[in-house]
Formats: sequence, C-alpha cells, structure tokens
Amino acid sequence: MRNLLIAGLLAGGIAGMVPLLNAGATQSAAVPVSKDTQDCLFCHEDLHPGIVSAWRESRHARITPGEAIQVKGLGLKVSSTEIPEQFLNVAVGCAECHTQRSEAHSGTFDHGGYDVHTAVSPKDCATCHAQEADQFSRNLMAHARGNLVNNPLYMDLARTIEGRVARAEQKLEFTPADPLTQAESCLHCHGTELEVVGSEERDTFHGGMEFPVVTGWPNQGVGRVNTDGSLGTCGACHNRHQFSIEMARQPYTCKKCHVGPDVPAYKVYSASRHGNMFSTHGKEWDFKKVPWTVGEDFTAPTCASCHVSLLADASGNEIAPRTHQMTDRLPWRIFGLIYAHPHPISPDTSIIRNADGLPLPTNLDGTFAGDFLINASTMAERAENMQKVCRSCHGSAWVNNFWERFENTIMTTNAATLEASRIMLDIWDKGYAVNHLAGGSPFDEAMERRWSDVWLFYANNIRFASSMAGGGDYGVFADGRYHIAQAIMELNDWFARQKAMDALGNTGQPASKPSLQKAK
Amino acid sequence: MRNLLIAGLLAGGIAGMVPLLNAGATQSAAVPVSKDTQDCLFCHEDLHPGIVSAWRESRHARITPGEAIQVKGLGLKVSSTEIPEQFLNVAVGCAECHTQRSEAHSGTFDHGGYDVHTAVSPKDCATCHAQEADQFSRNLMAHARGNLVNNPLYMDLARTIEGRVARAEQKLEFTPADPLTQAESCLHCHGTELEVVGSEERDTFHGGMEFPVVTGWPNQGVGRVNTDGSLGTCGACHNRHQFSIEMARQPYTCKKCHVGPDVPAYKVYSASRHGNMFSTHGKEWDFKKVPWTVGEDFTAPTCASCHVSLLADASGNEIAPRTHQMTDRLPWRIFGLIYAHPHPISPDTSIIRNADGLPLPTNLDGTFAGDFLINASTMAERAENMQKVCRSCHGSAWVNNFWERFENTIMTTNAATLEASRIMLDIWDKGYAVNHLAGGSPFDEAMERRWSDVWLFYANNIRFASSMAGGGDYGVFADGRYHIAQAIMELNDWFARQKAMDALGNTGQPASKPSLQKAK
Amino acid sequence: MRNLLIAGLLAGGIAGMVPLLNAGATQSAAVPVSKDTQDCLFCHEDLHPGIVSAWRESRHARITPGEAIQVKGLGLKVSSTEIPEQFLNVAVGCAECHTQRSEAHSGTFDHGGYDVHTAVSPKDCATCHAQEADQFSRNLMAHARGNLVNNPLYMDLARTIEGRVARAEQKLEFTPADPLTQAESCLHCHGTELEVVGSEERDTFHGGMEFPVVTGWPNQGVGRVNTDGSLGTCGACHNRHQFSIEMARQPYTCKKCHVGPDVPAYKVYSASRHGNMFSTHGKEWDFKKVPWTVGEDFTAPTCASCHVSLLADASGNEIAPRTHQMTDRLPWRIFGLIYAHPHPISPDTSIIRNADGLPLPTNLDGTFAGDFLINASTMAERAENMQKVCRSCHGSAWVNNFWERFENTIMTTNAATLEASRIMLDIWDKGYAVNHLAGGSPFDEAMERRWSDVWLFYANNIRFASSMAGGGDYGVFADGRYHIAQAIMELNDWFARQKAMDALGNTGQPASKPSLQKAK
Repeated sequence: MRNLLIAGLLAGGIAGMVPLLNAGATQSAAVPVSKDTQDCLFCHEDLHPGIVSAWRESRHARITPGEAIQVKGLGLKVSSTEIPEQFLNVAVGCAECHTQRSEAHSGTFDHGGYDVHTAVSPKDCATCHAQEADQFSRNLMAHARGNLVNNPLYMDLARTIEGRVARAEQKLEFTPADPLTQAESCLHCHGTELEVVGSEERDTFHGGMEFPVVTGWPNQGVGRVNTDGSLGTCGACHNRHQFSIEMARQPYTCKKCHVGPDVPAYKVYSASRHGNMFSTHGKEWDFKKVPWTVGEDFTAPTCASCHVSLLADASGNEIAPRTHQMTDRLPWRIFGLIYAHPHPISPDTSIIRNADGLPLPTNLDGTFAGDFLINASTMAERAENMQKVCRSCHGSAWVNNFWERFENTIMTTNAATLEASRIMLDIWDKGYAVNHLAGGSPFDEAMERRWSDVWLFYANNIRFASSMAGGGDYGVFADGRYHIAQAIMELNDWFARQKAMDALGNTGQPASKPSLQKAK
Repeated sequence: MRNLLIAGLLAGGIAGMVPLLNAGATQSAAVPVSKDTQDCLFCHEDLHPGIVSAWRESRHARITPGEAIQVKGLGLKVSSTEIPEQFLNVAVGCAECHTQRSEAHSGTFDHGGYDVHTAVSPKDCATCHAQEADQFSRNLMAHARGNLVNNPLYMDLARTIEGRVARAEQKLEFTPADPLTQAESCLHCHGTELEVVGSEERDTFHGGMEFPVVTGWPNQGVGRVNTDGSLGTCGACHNRHQFSIEMARQPYTCKKCHVGPDVPAYKVYSASRHGNMFSTHGKEWDFKKVPWTVGEDFTAPTCASCHVSLLADASGNEIAPRTHQMTDRLPWRIFGLIYAHPHPISPDTSIIRNADGLPLPTNLDGTFAGDFLINASTMAERAENMQKVCRSCHGSAWVNNFWERFENTIMTTNAATLEASRIMLDIWDKGYAVNHLAGGSPFDEAMERRWSDVWLFYANNIRFASSMAGGGDYGVFADGRYHIAQAIMELNDWFARQKAMDALGNTGQPASKPSLQKAK
Repeated sequence: MRNLLIAGLLAGGIAGMVPLLNAGATQSAAVPVSKDTQDCLFCHEDLHPGIVSAWRESRHARITPGEAIQVKGLGLKVSSTEIPEQFLNVAVGCAECHTQRSEAHSGTFDHGGYDVHTAVSPKDCATCHAQEADQFSRNLMAHARGNLVNNPLYMDLARTIEGRVARAEQKLEFTPADPLTQAESCLHCHGTELEVVGSEERDTFHGGMEFPVVTGWPNQGVGRVNTDGSLGTCGACHNRHQFSIEMARQPYTCKKCHVGPDVPAYKVYSASRHGNMFSTHGKEWDFKKVPWTVGEDFTAPTCASCHVSLLADASGNEIAPRTHQMTDRLPWRIFGLIYAHPHPISPDTSIIRNADGLPLPTNLDGTFAGDFLINASTMAERAENMQKVCRSCHGSAWVNNFWERFENTIMTTNAATLEASRIMLDIWDKGYAVNHLAGGSPFDEAMERRWSDVWLFYANNIRFASSMAGGGDYGVFADGRYHIAQAIMELNDWFARQKAMDALGNTGQPASKPSLQKAK
C-alpha cells in the first residue's frame, strides 16, 4: 500500500519540504508543508475537497508554529513554551495532527505506512496550545459526557426522553435508548465515547484497505471521550478543518448546542440589544484580532466576548484574560437542576450529592448542596470578572442595578420552581403519580413532565433573558414567565381534578399500580 | 389606449432595439432591450420602481439568451437547445415573459395593445430552461396543490386547522375554510389555482383600463395551477424579478415554507454545524458560480447543495448533477404521513391508497403502502446520490455511520408514532373520541390533535435533526424527543382518566354522541 | 473634584474647540469637539471604551448641527428650524446631550463641575430633531408604559404572568411582581419610570464621587418615563451611542420587542418573501440614504420601510413621508385586545372603556368600543398610506387582493376568538372557574390561560402572518391556525369533562370557592 502512495507521489513531488502550491487565492504566502502531509493531500484533496480547502483557508496552513511561538504578550495564540522540533517549520497539516501521539490513541491504524488516528484530541492540540487544553480540561464542558452518563438521576430523565416507549397495561415503560439514538440526541452535544471495536476492510481506489471500526463516531460533542482517554474536542467550537477564530467568536457556534428551550442562549442573545448590534454591524467588526479590542474590533459583545475571549482596551490594557474554563466569569449556574445555584466546585458534577443523597446540586426545597458548590467569596470574585467586561461599555450604576435584577430573578424563579415542586410533591404524596421513592420514575408521567417543563425550560429561559438583558420577550412570552405560571396552573388544575375524582371514589390510576409509600 | 402608450413613447424613444440606458450601477454592459419591453418599462418603471430595479439587477437584464445558449458543459444555465429567434438577441424583459405563449393562457388580456398574462408559468420559462421545467414537472413540489386538495383525508385535516369553528351542543363543528383563508394558509405554500372569473375596469393614469379578475391571485406557491394549466411556479424559489441564483442557493428561500414545526428544515439547519459555517463564513462564499465547486465556492452545504445544485470538484469533475426533481437524492420521505416511508413513485400522491383504502402512504400499524412507494434498489441508488455529496467533505466511515443513525432514527420515531397511534385507537375504540369510521373526523377533538402533534411535528423534527446532523437541540428539546414522549404521556393520562370516569358511570361525552362502531 | 478633572485636562489639552484627534479609522474628517465633551472623553474614553468608540462611529461625531441643518428637502435629517448657538459648530458629543436642559431633569447631579443627567430624553433630542420628537410623543409607543400600568385589567394579567405565585389551599394566589422583576419583564419593553430616590457616594479613580440613585435604571423601553417627565426614549430603536440609521432600518431592532408569540413580527418577517430578500441581498443595500429610494437603495421592505421611513422613487418623488407616529399607515390594530380592532384615536389607551365598562377596545362579544377608535374614513386614509408603499413593487390587483385576504383574516380570527370566549364564558357561568365578576381574576386558572393563548398568541400570529404575506408556516403550523383550533378543542374538552364530573356530583373546585354570581 505504501507503494501505491509512493507511486502517486512520484507525480506529485517528494521533496521533504515544498511550498504549498495549490493554496487558495486568499493565502498570502507559501508555508512549507511536511512530506507526510503532502502524502495525505495527494489522495485526500481529490477524495474530500471540502476538508482540504477548509484547511487551506485556516491559519494552520498559513503560519508555522515556529513563527507563531515568537509572538509574546496579549497577541499570543500558541501558549506552549516548547514545541517539538519537527513541527516548528512546517504548516500544521494533516499529518502533524493525525499522526502525532499515535501510541496514545487506541484507534491508531496503519494507513499507507503511516500510524494514523482519526479523532484528534485536546491532548494532541496541547502540543501547541498547552494552556488552553489545560484550562479546558478543568472546564465543565470537558466533563459534559460523564456529568450526564454517570448521574443515574439524569440518565433516568434521559431514558424518558430518548428511550423507547411501550405500554404495559396502562403504564408507559421507557427502555433506555440504543447507542445510535443516544449518539444523535443527548450525546450529540454531551459527547460520545469513541471506542475501537474491531476493524474492517473497505474498498478504496487503492484497493482494499483496513480501517478501525469505532463506535460513537462521528461526534463533535464538547465532552467526547477520545481514543487517548482525554475528554472533549476543540472541534466542538473550533470547527474542523478551518479552525477559525471568527467562527468561535460568533454566536452561531454556541447556538449549535444552546438554542433549545433548556438553554436558550442564542435565542435570547439574538433578540437582545447586543444581538441587534451584532446582527446589524457585526459584518464590519474584526473577529480575528488577538487581543480583541473593545470598541475598536467590535462594539457589542458576542458569547465569546463575555465568556471566553481575551479583551483589551484601545491602549492595549487587558480587560479580561482569555479562559477556556468558562466558569471563571460565572458565579451562578442558571441552568436549573432543579434550581439555579452557585457553580459546582469540581467540573465533575457526578460526585455531587444533595441532602437526600440524590446526585443534584440543590435540594427539592430549593436549598443548595452547599458542600459541593463554590462559596460566596469565589462567587464575588467571578462576578467581578464578568462585571469588568460589562463596564467596558456601561457605567457602574448600570452594571450594579442590572446585576441586582439578575440575582433577584434567580431568587424569584427558584421560588416559582419551589411552588411547582410542592404541587408535584403533593401529587406524589397522594399517589396520583409514582416517583423514584415509590418504585417509579419522577419523569415518566404527564404531570411529572409538566413539572420538568417548569425547571428545565421556563425558569431557565427567564434567567437567560435576565442574564443577557434580553428580558423582553424571552423573559415573558417566549417560554418565559407567562409559561411558568401556566404550567403551575395546569399542575394545580390536574391535582384539583384528581382529588375531585378521588372524592368520587376513583383515583384514575391503573389497577396494577403498586401501593405507595409516602413520596417525601 | 394604444394611443396613450404611443404618445408616451414619443418622449421615451421608440427605436426597435435600444441599449438599456437606465441600468443600475452594477450592470456591466448594455444589453439590447426589445421595443415591447421598452413599452412596458415606460410606464411600469415609475409605477413599480421596485419590480423594475430588481429586474435590472437580474441576469435576465444582463445577458441575452443568444449569448447564454453558447455556454456548454457544466457551466450551462440555458438548457433549451432551440430558442425562438425573437428572444435571442434581447434581454429577457417584461414582454419576453409576459406576452409569450399568450394563446395558452386563459388570463391573457389586451393591455395597451399587447396580449399580456400576469402570471408567468414554468412552461413560459421552459422556452429557455426546458430541462429544469421538465424535471420540476415530475417533482413532488409541482404537485403540492393537487396532493393536498385531491386527498380527502388531508383536506379533512385542513378543515380542522384553517376552517371556521362553531359549537353544536358540546361538539365543535369545523366548516371548510373560505377561499381567501385557504389562499393564505395551506395554499400559500401548496399553491392556489389561478382562475379567471371576469374582468373589471380600473382607473389608471392612462384612464380606465380593463383587467382580468383572477381568483387565487397573488400566489407564489410551489404547486400553483397556472392560467395555462401548468403546475407550479419557478418564482417560488427564484424570487421575482431578480431571479437570483444566490437567493435560491441560500437557505432563506427554503425557510419560506420549511420553518414550521411540521417541516423544520431551516431551524434545524441554522442550528447545525453546516448552518454555523454558513452563518459565519457564507458571506465570503460565491453563490453565483455554475458549476458550484465544493471547497472553492463554498465550504459547507446549504439546502441547495445537497438537494438541487450541480456540484463539481476543483478539477471540474461533476460530483452531483443539477436536479429540479429533488427526490433524486432522497430515498426516504421523512415527513410522516403518518409514518416516515420510502418516497412515493409518482409525484401525484393523491393516487395512493393504503391497506385500509385510505389515501395514505402508510398503514396505521406503521407498515408501508408498498405498491405506491419506491423499492429498495431505487432507495439505494438515491442514497448513493446523496452520500456522494457527503463524501466531498467526510470520510466514508463518517458517512456510513451517520446514515446508519439516520435510518435507525426513522425506525425509532416510527415506533414512537405507532405507540401513540395505539393509544389513540384505544380511545376511539372505547368511544371516547369519534373518528372517521364512526362518522366523525380523526382530527377534530383535543386528544386527536395531541396525537397529530406526535407525527405532524415531533417525529418530523427528530428526523430532520437526524438527517441534517443538527441532532442536538432540535432532536431533543425543541419539538423533539422530549416532546414526543410528553405527548404520549398526555394521551395515556387522558385515556386513563377517561376510563376512571367511565368506571364511575360517565364518559364525559356529549349526550348527542352517536353510538360507535369499533374504530379499527 | 473639579480640580482633579482640570489636573487631568492639563495633560489632555484644554483649548476650547479642538479637532477630534483620536477618531476611529472610518471617520472621514475632523469635526470640532466642544471643550465640555473633551472633559467627558478624558476620563470616559478609558473607563468605557465601548461607549466612546460607538459614538465615534456615529454621525453625531462626524457632522455638526450647523452643517446638518443646511440640508433641505427630502434629505433633511435635522428637522428643528432653530438650534441654539452653542451646538451649531461642534460635534454632538457627550456634553451636548447629557448637560443640556439640566434644570428640566430631576436626575441632574454635579459631576466634576458639570450638571449632568444620565438618561437623555426625547425632549433633549428635540433640540435638533423637533419634528420626530413631536410625532413620537403622539405615537402609541411613547405611551407604552402608561397604557399598561394605568390599565387595571392589563395589570391583572401582568400579575398572573410576572407576579409571585403561592397556593392558598387549592387556589393559586399571585402577588404583583416586585419592581426589579417588572423592570426586566413587561417594563423592559414598555418602559420603567426613572425616579431619583436619593444619592450615594461611589469610589472612582478620582476618589469618592456622589451619584444619584435612580430606580428603574437602566431601561431602554420605548415608553420610559424620563427624569424630565417626557415619555419614551429614542434609544429604544436608535441604539446608543452609535444611533445608526442602518440599525433602526434593519429588522433586528424591532425584533428586540416584537419576536415573542404575542407580537411575532420579526419571526413572520424573517420567513416571508420580503425577509428572504433582505437576508440574501440586504448586505448589498444602502441602509443610510435619506430619502430611502425604493429599488435603488433596497429591493424589499424591512419593518421601517413600511412603517416609518421616508420613501422616494428614483426620480426623487416622495412615496411616503417619514413618520414617527407609526399608526399613520395602520388602519387596524391586529394585536388582539382581545379582538383585532380599528386603531385607538388617542395614543393613551388607558382612557378606553368598552360597553361593560372594562378598559378594553373591544367587547367580549367581538364588537368594538367604537367611540374610542378611529372611524372608517380615517381607516381608509391610513390603508391608502400603506398601500402606496405596497404599490412600489406590486400591481394594484396584487395589492387589493392581498388586502382583501388580510381583512378577511381579521374577521375569521376574531370569529375564532369569539368561539373560544363563548366556551370560557360558559365555564365561568357554570362556576368551573372564577373571573373578575365573581371576585377572582379572568387570567389565573389553567383554562383561563388556555383562553388567553387564543387571543394573545395564536390569533395575533395568524394576523401578523397575513399582514406581512408570511402566511405559510406562521399562519398555520407555528403558533397559527393549527394551534388556535387546538386550544379551542382543549377548552371544549375540559369543559365537557368538568360537566361530566359535575353530573357525577363533584365540581372539582376547591371547597373554599365562593358561591358565584353569573359571570356575564
């Protein structure tokens, strides 16, 4: 097989380092491409023109690590202090990423004489971007898969969402979803586990070639478990193979996972004043500059401005450092589980237990599982990190009053969730629905679902609208306050009617329903 | 009246062929405009500046058919092999389209001495674009109107959506919608029938002029019945009067009819990785090139890339041919009626009958009305057509695994729909709701509507999310798996409560309800 | 404190009028900046780089009122006929707006020797833009706050949306929302009242400085009550501090308050043919030209084109005058309260009383509170104002037929709302829910909420889709006709079941429910 490749290369040039000749029109200067990458390109440029052209547009194809590492100060993009010799003076091409650290990847296979792994991991990227990879490893997102699959309560909820449903007498039974379904529902964003389960021969234009069979592939989920055991993928936000910083800084990247009613960040942003400014004037902004200068490069924040990017003022002073541990600027976790709460201390949230022993950061009565959550002083520090960004464009009275409203909204939405939970507890208590304490699931009956609407959708919407000053429609009429009140009214209505039926001598429950312990 | 026009033209130039002088700044060179079109422009440029300026921006105003027909190979846009002499050397202007084939159009009227028809049809466009018009005539979309209005079951559903509601005792009665309502609800997209019902004099600045009265006008629905009897309108996607290929290739065009929860294509796309790339980098892409070169002209697909456009690689090899019969790359019809199914053989789907004799491509038990649907070999061929496009940017393991998930999701969503249908059948069976077999409609009661939510919205959302790898939110929390399970829970809850009431001696049904046959 | 500022200014230049040296790259020529504004910039450019750079991008920083006032005819932007001397020859900078009319503002405070007010009001803007401020003061939007807070019925609805909920026995009690919650929900768009309630010292880099404490701040709601008693803020649409006309003319500005299901203007627009043209070609349009020339500057309307902007044809003839009283082109108010109706005569709608004495423009039976609404001749005049705009791009048959459909839809959606209201009245009549006539609220029970879904969301969606020819999905499947029918089915289903329970001897109501008067 090597022979085939070599035969091909005779036509394509086999010198060790040659300039990148077929570069796209937008490429300013030729950067040497390693012989290994040339080998890759020889076939794959024809096979997958889209991948290769995207890479040719990328900064990876236009500057060598050796040049990039020279940049110091706020302009720095390559944070590793030492980069192996062989990478210094060539473009970061196919081979540089897909053949490095081959011994660390269980998915490595011989491909035309090269030891190739398909899925590049943050540890591979760390060769040049050590600091970012390190921060990301401590980021909640890197743990997105484990935080779901290692939490039995969340997986019980997942079962009632993505699982297969069938009736057993009058009761609905949900079977956990098959792996293919999981991979394109919850784990699409949370990340699959890439597991090599065998190999197969596939027909190629070189004849039969052997490839590994990898379950969980493809996946670009932010908490993917890689074939080297590392967590996450940089490609979740830095889309392969262009890896453009413009893309990571525009809100569409975050939208991929944060558009639904559970985390409606994009929707709220796009209807906010900031979003309006981005939509109208964003095309005139410079999304590539490092550092990213407030007022000069952009005049309103995108997601990245507030949560990730290194920001500077026009004099070159740092306003906020770059962070890939995105909780650095977040005191509150406004995603309700089931109430909003101070952020967890550890990015691995599966270790959390609340007062009832449940793997939840809050108790059903709205209090916090405090031992596992950051304390007031860390919260204050993180709030200050964020407010510094706000003050780039807003006076301190503005910022302080805004923040006061935001924290008030955390409290009022938690209070509304508590009222919904009290009705739900009464429903369980009366035996009108069967929860986990009574041998069932708290998520698989109609009113349980209406209850989860409250804290999984509506309360979150209101908080996201509050947090991004997009308070109008998304805080009120679009899955907001109107709907949280409506859900509570419906819970109360259902409960009242069930009690009325009860008084008439029938609970409306299937005859097979087991007798209940008290739910709480 | 002719005199008036002529009087006007004395001031405006009446030579046979004069260059287009008032052309917009973006027009590169003068193209001769026919005398007839000059006559049109003389009044209409002032009357409707927006229409005329859009046309001036169009390729129709900038190149003659005689030039365009010279182009051969993949760059070809004008597919007719012979074009009548009078069109060859003038811009394609007002008169060229609105006065040709006047005898074929029932709506033709005398307008200042010209035989004009208002609504230009695909058969008119076929003068230059024969191949596209021919393909489109075999396209499901061309039949969008007939496939709705000639299907009594779908029209029964339409009646309960757009019809007028009134209570008769405790029952809701829906009267079919009036034509004006139909024209702006279902038929807005499916297409009205343009019917000349008389004529009227209208006051113009030339004095009174006679115009036809056409019911169903205006309409740009994809399956419009034209005054020459032809089906559809090219203007549905190629927006009048700029007819820009950029527009047809951008996803906003498809969004006009495919944004709702029934066919959420745009929403899913915009939240997908492909959509992210389009939103961030699309402004740098070339949406005009023919053929459309993957990697060079664009780096991520839009709707058109996968479903319609002629794609090539950088070496000029064809990846996929242009098709206006959009099912050419579609093995599965993922829009549930009521289950996803292999695509119908004929674009006229009103001929389909399932095992129960209903005009549906599937049976209520989830099996297919196989005689009317494409077979496995045609499905395989179409899948390959699509996968060729995928492989422009993705390796075959990626594509194959993706496809496996997609087909798995077709099966699991069909299974969920079946479970919902079983509950619905039980509800009908018990007489708690009255369907078509019992003299009612299967669509006009609260639980019947909740059942249609399952297959008309949620199952479709999940499949569209799966098909476009936008699996995250739209497959789960935004009208996806969360909601299909919730609807089934509510159906089951309602049924259980109704049975409980039944056990107490009351069905909760109006006293006037007829005794039922068994529903199935 | 003055000393501190002066000390600073020694380093920064204290001449009376100096050119703006630090101007952004896009600024074409230096415009003199007043000494007062220089004083502001000296500190605030560093403190809030985003604000200052946005201002530098603005027209206010690039042309003096003295120059601007020279423009006459359709190009006029500065409508005041006399502008005070001190503003004529300097850029409109910080001091020009924030220190003028200081005696009129209760929030004025001494800030480094200047009498500064934080919130600039329309009366401040009127110094140069007198006509626009005057029109806006008669605009419904300027009264958006009062029209809500002075209407007890609307505030009762608001209480059940944004208020705090708690159960009292089986009944839900809603407490009016606290001011912080109000400010970021209903009043986020409707506008807060800015009220100076004290002052506080804050630590600055100049040491401690005294600032007013203003409740209701920040807020950019369109009906804000300012510290000079004026209503509204120009900044609601003309976003501070760039005040760009491009922004006001793009639909994203309106989206900030008009995206929710109550007023889904943006959503409908973006899925309409007009929206498609804007999304595809809008980046090539000129959003800055005054007048705005149809066909030349843009080829499809945005919100502003139809509702606000001064439009001209290519010959410079006015098609429609600029208006900041946006009802000038609106005969119908399609936002249902609870039915669509002719627009109110007075922008202060809190004075309206219907036949039942309720502060509603319609009666529960669908008839209009006619004395308070514009008459047929005013409606005809306004329709003509709008249709003139339509005819820029559409023939009169198109426009007339479109309009006929639109008015038909107003009638059919009102009819559907009436049917829903009849069921609701029956429910109240039977005592199954408790409305305002029986000592409760018509908005705080599950079925009352389902009823408000009908007229607050679905009927509005259908009408907005109709009005903007976005009739497809938003008129049918996205909160449209499908859903209005579904809500009516559910109301009817609930009512039937409640009657069935009643027949069994139980109303399902809490024991504490007061005996009812007849609801209507």
